[in-house]
Amino acid sequence: MYSSSDNWSGAHPRIADALHRNASGYAPAYGTSGLDKRIEHQFNAVFEREVAVFPVANGTAANALSMASIRRPGGVAFCHREAHLIEDEGGATELLTGGARVVPVDGTGGKIDPDCLKREISRFPPEFVHAGQPMAVSLTQATEIGTVYTLDEICAIAEMSAAHGLPLHMDGARFANALAHLDVSPADMTWRSGVDLLSFGATKNGCWCAEALVVFDPDKARDLPFIRKQAAHLFSKMRFVSAQFEAYFEDDLWLDIARHSNRLAAMLQDGIQASAGARLAWRTEGNEVFAILARARADALQQAGAHFHEWKPPHGWPELPGEDEVLIRLVTSFATTPEDVDDFVRLLE
Amino acid sequence: MYSSSDNWSGAHPRIADALHRNASGYAPAYGTSGLDKRIEHQFNAVFEREVAVFPVANGTAANALSMASIRRPGGVAFCHREAHLIEDEGGATELLTGGARVVPVDGTGGKIDPDCLKREISRFPPEFVHAGQPMAVSLTQATEIGTVYTLDEICAIAEMSAAHGLPLHMDGARFANALAHLDVSPADMTWRSGVDLLSFGATKNGCWCAEALVVFDPDKARDLPFIRKQAAHLFSKMRFVSAQFEAYFEDDLWLDIARHSNRLAAMLQDGIQASAGARLAWRTEGNEVFAILARARADALQQAGAHFHEWKPPHGWPELPGEDEVLIRLVTSFATTPEDVDDFVRLLE
Amino acid sequence: MYSSSDNWSGAHPRIADALHRNASGYAPAYGTSGLDKRIEHQFNAVFEREVAVFPVANGTAANALSMASIRRPGGVAFCHREAHLIEDEGGATELLTGGARVVPVDGTGGKIDPDCLKREISRFPPEFVHAGQPMAVSLTQATEIGTVYTLDEICAIAEMSAAHGLPLHMDGARFANALAHLDVSPADMTWRSGVDLLSFGATKNGCWCAEALVVFDPDKARDLPFIRKQAAHLFSKMRFVSAQFEAYFEDDLWLDIARHSNRLAAMLQDGIQASAGARLAWRTEGNEVFAILARARADALQQAGAHFHEWKPPHGWPELPGEDEVLIRLVTSFATTPEDVDDFVRLLE
Amino acid sequence: MYSSSDNWSGAHPRIADALHRNASGYAPAYGTSGLDKRIEHQFNAVFEREVAVFPVANGTAANALSMASIRRPGGVAFCHREAHLIEDEGGATELLTGGARVVPVDGTGGKIDPDCLKREISRFPPEFVHAGQPMAVSLTQATEIGTVYTLDEICAIAEMSAAHGLPLHMDGARFANALAHLDVSPADMTWRSGVDLLSFGATKNGCWCAEALVVFDPDKARDLPFIRKQAAHLFSKMRFVSAQFEAYFEDDLWLDIARHSNRLAAMLQDGIQASAGARLAWRTEGNEVFAILARARADALQQAGAHFHEWKPPHGWPELPGEDEVLIRLVTSFATTPEDVDDFVRLLE
Repeated sequence: MYSSSDNWSGAHPRIADALHRNASGYAPAYGTSGLDKRIEHQFNAVFEREVAVFPVANGTAANALSMASIRRPGGVAFCHREAHLIEDEGGATELLTGGARVVPVDGTGGKIDPDCLKREISRFPPEFVHAGQPMAVSLTQATEIGTVYTLDEICAIAEMSAAHGLPLHMDGARFANALAHLDVSPADMTWRSGVDLLSFGATKNGCWCAEALVVFDPDKARDLPFIRKQAAHLFSKMRFVSAQFEAYFEDDLWLDIARHSNRLAAMLQDGIQASAGARLAWRTEGNEVFAILARARADALQQAGAHFHEWKPPHGWPELPGEDEVLIRLVTSFATTPEDVDDFVRLLE
Repeated sequence: MYSSSDNWSGAHPRIADALHRNASGYAPAYGTSGLDKRIEHQFNAVFEREVAVFPVANGTAANALSMASIRRPGGVAFCHREAHLIEDEGGATELLTGGARVVPVDGTGGKIDPDCLKREISRFPPEFVHAGQPMAVSLTQATEIGTVYTLDEICAIAEMSAAHGLPLHMDGARFANALAHLDVSPADMTWRSGVDLLSFGATKNGCWCAEALVVFDPDKARDLPFIRKQAAHLFSKMRFVSAQFEAYFEDDLWLDIARHSNRLAAMLQDGIQASAGARLAWRTEGNEVFAILARARADALQQAGAHFHEWKPPHGWPELPGEDEVLIRLVTSFATTPEDVDDFVRLLE
Repeated sequence: MYSSSDNWSGAHPRIADALHRNASGYAPAYGTSGLDKRIEHQFNAVFEREVAVFPVANGTAANALSMASIRRPGGVAFCHREAHLIEDEGGATELLTGGARVVPVDGTGGKIDPDCLKREISRFPPEFVHAGQPMAVSLTQATEIGTVYTLDEICAIAEMSAAHGLPLHMDGARFANALAHLDVSPADMTWRSGVDLLSFGATKNGCWCAEALVVFDPDKARDLPFIRKQAAHLFSKMRFVSAQFEAYFEDDLWLDIARHSNRLAAMLQDGIQASAGARLAWRTEGNEVFAILARARADALQQAGAHFHEWKPPHGWPELPGEDEVLIRLVTSFATTPEDVDDFVRLLE
Repeated sequence: MYSSSDNWSGAHPRIADALHRNASGYAPAYGTSGLDKRIEHQFNAVFEREVAVFPVANGTAANALSMASIRRPGGVAFCHREAHLIEDEGGATELLTGGARVVPVDGTGGKIDPDCLKREISRFPPEFVHAGQPMAVSLTQATEIGTVYTLDEICAIAEMSAAHGLPLHMDGARFANALAHLDVSPADMTWRSGVDLLSFGATKNGCWCAEALVVFDPDKARDLPFIRKQAAHLFSKMRFVSAQFEAYFEDDLWLDIARHSNRLAAMLQDGIQASAGARLAWRTEGNEVFAILARARADALQQAGAHFHEWKPPHGWPELPGEDEVLIRLVTSFATTPEDVDDFVRLLE
């Protein structure tokens, strides 16, 4: 009835159809086919400028290759302490950069606090080799706990980064959900707000395995073809990724899916708030919903067929679950239906 | 009409159908779904023993992660000087092993010569830290030039490897073609002949992006889940790979495709031999065909719609193309038809 | 008059003499000379067992090569959040391990708190590839703030490490100072308390550049010769390090120096406590002294010729310097005299 | 009587004295003392321009850090197939660059053949990610077999490198011997001939452990402080290296030593040529001498107290030792006396 994560759903029917449709016929390999080229143009159109695009097949690759492209010796990247980059990628950045480090930055609501960022950066004075040198800042949009940076908040991080000469990366594993929430353009949420490179995620939003590393200044992407290849993230039949993107962008499917997921997440939040069986941990803005409920009830829900992960209380969160309570995460996706939400809320009672 | 490589064809219809069929519904992520588990059992059945299987999405990843799993400090891997591992993977082994080296070994017919292997290994005396220490031998089956090691030849390499305490890896990017040619079992061509780990390729043989790293002694694979994750080669919706494998193995589709490709390659070789417009460079046993023809004719063929790569003369090959001649490679796949072959041969005249 | 750190003094006269004495004559290179072998035996005698010893020329190398020798894919090492390994080595562990991470552990008094260690380790559940896998614990003896783990405290960390299958490393950059304070044997302070490998520091204690990576179970050091060479830490005229160690151990020079430094540090602490011009931050047990004084007075002292570093308040420290106050670190060494201490204390008034 | 290598001798008396003299007193650590700064100026004077200098303690470090400073993703460095960088450094370049490769180039007389270099570079076409991208050329002066590139020969390699946009590195482990032979200025033999960065060796020429990475365009050395630190090659009591350099340059000691070694090597070559017991393999120009003699005689010499290494015949060398013959290498140093040479030649008879 309910999925643990947006990556438990497979592919949206239109994505699946596109892949099927593109299975036959010959096409040049390694990202040089006509379809691959059309996708590059599509990204230019989406971002209203010429960008350099490097499709890969998962988000960890997009993040770690982003970091590899801006690596510096003794390099240190800064991200929120709950970011996927530091918590869930098994050391990919450290490996693919050849030894860079990732330093956690505090902040409530899943967001980097600019003052905390400043304090962490200041621990690495220029030319102090013993500490190493800052190399990048990475923020996650939408965050790991479903919140969304406003454009002003992004700009504040970007200013702090720029003041220290650091490129700003956005982990956009749930980019579309954030975009749908803010109702701004992709350009506004990225380069116009000071973002230098982006992990553009599509997998969680209805694709099988389609992500793209987008560099807003193509001059800075010169080495990326070699970086991607050396890390074994260049695919021969690359059109299997491009075909997903083609359908993803067509008729704004990507935004429709994100709006759908966000809307159902809002429905779910409303249902939880109205319910006696659980309470909302905090109101989120994307497709992730966090609720607190009695452990016994959570167990019962799982037995009734609901799937969800228990979640660690985020940094700075005042209200910790009691001994008998758990914090859980629910995620909506293209596949979630209003009936799913109703069923879940009914089970809560 | 004719494709430059087996990776110019998309996916076999039955592979494409399987993916389409598996697109809907929820399934646990990261390789833990029922389908993923069934594929693991399938590999056990194919290899007639319990193996450890790590699906990835391209052959470079399978090779480099294989090397990473048997890395040693100061490590040196040996492979044929024309092997994909050393020539075409952009330094992936060096990166993903954290600094190992790959040393080329001579041999005619695209195959490692055991004496040459012995000579190269002997350049790294035990405990001589200045040179480094041998860590692995890798052979490619079928080879880069379409030839196939006999079981005796594999055993000879395996004995030499074992005598030096080195695990033997097989790059099976065209595993099925070799198997179809030898008409032996997968077990015979691998662990029963002394192979320790295998890059099991399916992409070139009709899949979109499905390869698997197979370790024949599962005890030696303990670290591989972490190695794969750290290199960013673990996929969330892993079933998109598993679904390909399910169709691949069903009713021996994989062997049917390989036999088809090999048969059409043989047809093509016969046509070239009979033709006045080109001559066969050497007779191959898989799905790659190498021919020598006048450069002017090669150009005309390309203009007429044929696609092929010019090829470097392999090591130890006596007959070099003359100034006006080129050596070309043609590759058959599931998508090649007898009409394609006829058309090409006709164009040759 | 006063040095900022124990690495501002040069070499103890007996170390300098030994080097001079060994400058002439031929000796086999790369650590194979008679002198080099004698030093290995000396280490066996010092530690009362057969150990594997790898002399290197600085402490960062000893630490990072230690970590490299026990690296695991996706690996995570744990150390105190103020440890040199994580704060002052510019990412050496990350580079030389090929991508491992170092995670900070809390604890007051510069020491790892076993409960905090347990909590951090628990963030990496077995087989959860997304987080990575624990690979090592490292403690610093004496600590960065001059305190010394008791044998019981070491045992507690060792038990926690062993319970999770993790080797325990000791960063002994100030090993001799800790030993002199505890007045126990080197064996007691290391392997008998559960330490598996040690960075044995001699540079800060009167050598030019002599450190040794000591592995207590020589079977686990098989790869270290290759690891040291690949990281470019094997020296040709290795006897320049061995000659330092020869003098270092002769007639217990190393312990005499450490006792001297510790004694003068105690004198200095007494002087500060008795002074109106500063107060002791905390009483230390090695050769580092931490004091709080008015910023104006600190400036005056520097102008009068004293050298010291301003220090960041350590983790969990209750008494933060006020706005007009600074926390400073003073370090004694073989070169410090009672007159130096008197002069400094007099200046304080 | 005779040493296997120039690294079997210890330190020249004036080097040893300098170290002894500098052992006392305080000095700022990590290369910031007055002595350290004076050495930097000394290098500027030696090379007649402002250079960036990074002292390290062994040649492998100087070479590998050089490569690390010019690394590129998927990077490939080219050097002679017998170069130390590829044959004797245990994979240091691969490790410290984070995965670059070193490709051997043919050439007789121990020197890179520019045409062979061109052919190897051409195997890596621009933008062909599968092969990787060229990143550097390294030549060894003097070569591993005692020959010396003329300035014209260096210029030819430099032009070829520049034509492909590749920085040129010189491994100057025996820099002084080459300089003494050519009787040109350090500037002429390096940047005026197109060399971009240099491993300036002093260890083999009378120091204990003193090498320096010299970058002729300081703007290109910005990251090197971090690179050196991260690889654990920054020393705290750095003056122990600087003190060696101070004596090394004083009154041209370095050139005197090199001239002495070269002269005794010439004497030894004359003696061998005149002897019936051995024949000269080729005439060298530095301090390495290569001779062919009967294996029985070689064994007898070793028993009589001579030390030397058997040597592999170099690339392109026509005259291979017979079954009963061996090729040996003899090396002179500051410590070699005319009596040593006479003794050896007498033993040959």
